[in-house]
Amino acid sequence: MLKLYQFHPSGNCYKVRLLLHQLGIPFEVVELDLKAGAARGADFKAKNPIGRVPTLELSPGTFLAESNAILWYFAEGTPFIPTDKLERARMLQWMFFEQYSHEPYIAVARAWISFFGVPAGKERELEERTQKGYAALDVMEGELKQRPFFAGERYSLADIALYAYTHVADEGRFELSRYPAIRAWFTRVQAQPGHLTITAPSGTWREPSR
Amino acid sequence: MLKLYQFHPSGNCYKVRLLLHQLGIPFEVVELDLKAGAARGADFKAKNPIGRVPTLELSPGTFLAESNAILWYFAEGTPFIPTDKLERARMLQWMFFEQYSHEPYIAVARAWISFFGVPAGKERELEERTQKGYAALDVMEGELKQRPFFAGERYSLADIALYAYTHVADEGRFELSRYPAIRAWFTRVQAQPGHLTITAPSGTWREPSR
Repeated sequence: MLKLYQFHPSGNCYKVRLLLHQLGIPFEVVELDLKAGAARGADFKAKNPIGRVPTLELSPGTFLAESNAILWYFAEGTPFIPTDKLERARMLQWMFFEQYSHEPYIAVARAWISFFGVPAGKERELEERTQKGYAALDVMEGELKQRPFFAGERYSLADIALYAYTHVADEGRFELSRYPAIRAWFTRVQAQPGHLTITAPSGTWREPSR
Repeated sequence: MLKLYQFHPSGNCYKVRLLLHQLGIPFEVVELDLKAGAARGADFKAKNPIGRVPTLELSPGTFLAESNAILWYFAEGTPFIPTDKLERARMLQWMFFEQYSHEPYIAVARAWISFFGVPAGKERELEERTQKGYAALDVMEGELKQRPFFAGERYSLADIALYAYTHVADEGRFELSRYPAIRAWFTRVQAQPGHLTITAPSGTWREPSR
């Protein structure tokens, strides 16, 4: 069975659980103690030299890393990837935006504030990350005023990638009340068949509803 | 004709020029003055709300952003994307690694040191970025000891994405002499048909050699 090495509260790990649930693909979970540095040790780096979760063991000894690459792997040939060439590239555009312009600010602020504590001397850096996080939310709000989902008319991997940390951005002290288009999109994402919350325990995986 | 909005020394822009050259696709260039904030103005943000180069105008009024998504768009159906499903996902894994764990450190250090100057008060941040840049190079070195290219046996978009800033990392004061596997890979990348250097003027675009 597929084995997901993860840290449950991580949005990057949640992306993978959400998609696998929506696709009806069973998997088991190995929970890592990131506070104790579990992803940085030699044991884990033999699985994923980048030293990050999520890491998926596809078959014994075969690993795939980077949340958005894992999403792509499982979504190929499914409705989660648009069939139109430009929409497909647009989906990837937003997935790269998520990793470059969104996650380093919103996810890191959330991780520091809600899980690991703000590292000593990083208070000013937190302010900068907060500012850049708001810039990312502004870009998202502008897009979602024009179309229902990031790749166009349909829910795709780009929505999974961006939903993961955006919907819990309040845990990084981002005020989402000022973003009505983003909040309306949350409702559309949550209405997708087989939706799973970030807190749903991995151990309760069942046949999804679709 | 395709119109590439770019800043010539940017590795992210170079990726696009290199692939289009290797594919024999003609394009014209609009050079932006990033020092003067050209990518941050309302005019440019109407083209790409993320406010970054490269941005490609596919047809009048239709824009695509994020270097690695642009690469994907043009490479679909060509040998630059592996036909094997796992190799394709592995290629994307390294492209996301590049944007998350490599570019923010190696490209930013290079930009500060060689183009824009280190911002006031960012000296310690530069040290941190240098450290994380070396961590990315260490991961690359480890991979390249095992296989000739990042997706496996063949040159792919992952090599274009990672070559762009790695081969000029010395401009960010990274010492590449300690990375023999990376330097051997440079030679393999440079030997690909239609290779183009980062400094080759855009105005001299010609029919590529393949």
